[in-house]
Amino acid sequence: MRLPKVLAFDVFGTVVDWRTGIARDAEPLLEMLGRTDVTPEAFADDWRARYQPAMARVRSGERPFVILDTLHRETLEELLVSLEIDPAAVGDERLHDLTLAWHRLDPWPDAVAGLNRLKRHFPIVTLSNGNIALMVDMALRAGLPWDAILGAEVSGHYKPDPEAYLATARQLAIQPDELCLVAAHHSDLSAARATGLLTAYVDRPMEYGGRPAPDRGFAQAWEWSVRSLIELASVFGI
Amino acid sequence: MRLPKVLAFDVFGTVVDWRTGIARDAEPLLEMLGRTDVTPEAFADDWRARYQPAMARVRSGERPFVILDTLHRETLEELLVSLEIDPAAVGDERLHDLTLAWHRLDPWPDAVAGLNRLKRHFPIVTLSNGNIALMVDMALRAGLPWDAILGAEVSGHYKPDPEAYLATARQLAIQPDELCLVAAHHSDLSAARATGLLTAYVDRPMEYGGRPAPDRGFAQAWEWSVRSLIELASVFGI
Repeated sequence: MRLPKVLAFDVFGTVVDWRTGIARDAEPLLEMLGRTDVTPEAFADDWRARYQPAMARVRSGERPFVILDTLHRETLEELLVSLEIDPAAVGDERLHDLTLAWHRLDPWPDAVAGLNRLKRHFPIVTLSNGNIALMVDMALRAGLPWDAILGAEVSGHYKPDPEAYLATARQLAIQPDELCLVAAHHSDLSAARATGLLTAYVDRPMEYGGRPAPDRGFAQAWEWSVRSLIELASVFGI
Repeated sequence: MRLPKVLAFDVFGTVVDWRTGIARDAEPLLEMLGRTDVTPEAFADDWRARYQPAMARVRSGERPFVILDTLHRETLEELLVSLEIDPAAVGDERLHDLTLAWHRLDPWPDAVAGLNRLKRHFPIVTLSNGNIALMVDMALRAGLPWDAILGAEVSGHYKPDPEAYLATARQLAIQPDELCLVAAHHSDLSAARATGLLTAYVDRPMEYGGRPAPDRGFAQAWEWSVRSLIELASVFGI
């Protein structure tokens, strides 16, 4: 198998564990509100479930491009309303801080070591729907050694729009088939493959707390398929 | 003096020595063409002198945004024509390779050590007119440890357009006066200050081979003024 020139990484779920991090940061708010009926993990799952529909309104052209921090804030308020919590009563400062929980996610245990090993042989870049400040804050906190922060805010397109993948290859001055998307999501990889990218699947069975991934129907035989970023370095022979 | 939250760097002339690198890579072409009347350094100076006018046509709206690699290729061909060299006779492959000389510039002697020291206390990002692939290639070759590649291709605006500075602060989710531009050029710093950025001047007396800088008329009392990136870390007290 021919090796890629650059590795581009999906981040939420592939490199970092969004569910544990969001639950951890939501817990104090739920406790303060006395909402013992809502587990922090269910809160995290519900917030994340509002991610694709929010981006779909940008992708469809229904609204102009806005960064993911903006969508996260809007979907947080929608989630609170659905739980019969008044966002205004929670207050702007708490809402802002909880929105930034997406900047404070922890990497999966193999991620930092795996990225550092991969980085010795490939440029490693983000190809995430997360905005630039989110990716920079997360990288500084978690020690993710990206060579460049690319993705939605840089291309102006959310995955799985074809342009999200094609713009990233173009910005790197390489052909689509010289760029490999590394992702834990079959839907993301499927869209990347349709634009000509190489694909590497990383299994993250705990992304949804052990439940099956919603996009498992998109599963295919990817160029590479591994259980960690350390294993990805090994299968690349580096 | 209040410290900035993020340091944003001009790159050509501030972090890397474009004149020596371009001269080195132009020399074989001039030799091949028997043009002993043109020194490689004069070739580099003439190519660089075409940089501001080429960007001015984008900044004025006369033409849509194109990346710096495109402008470098166009100005290279203009330079060759001015020397009565037919670009077609040089050939696309050689022209392409020489255009990429801007990706292969060496850092000033203090730059890598200085950036690594500054990086321990500040996020360090590029705020260059160079395009993403150029900045990534240069960083990988020279060991420049950027936390993010920002600048013209990401903002869609060439410095000194105000939006080039303001977009970078916005992408980092900070206020303009929390961002410090580090640059060897008074004109760049002057435009950055006009948009509210903090400013740090690095003296690079050899940028033009020892001749005075063309923008010396813009000199002001900047927040910080140093002779190297190592000294910048020292005056920041880090």
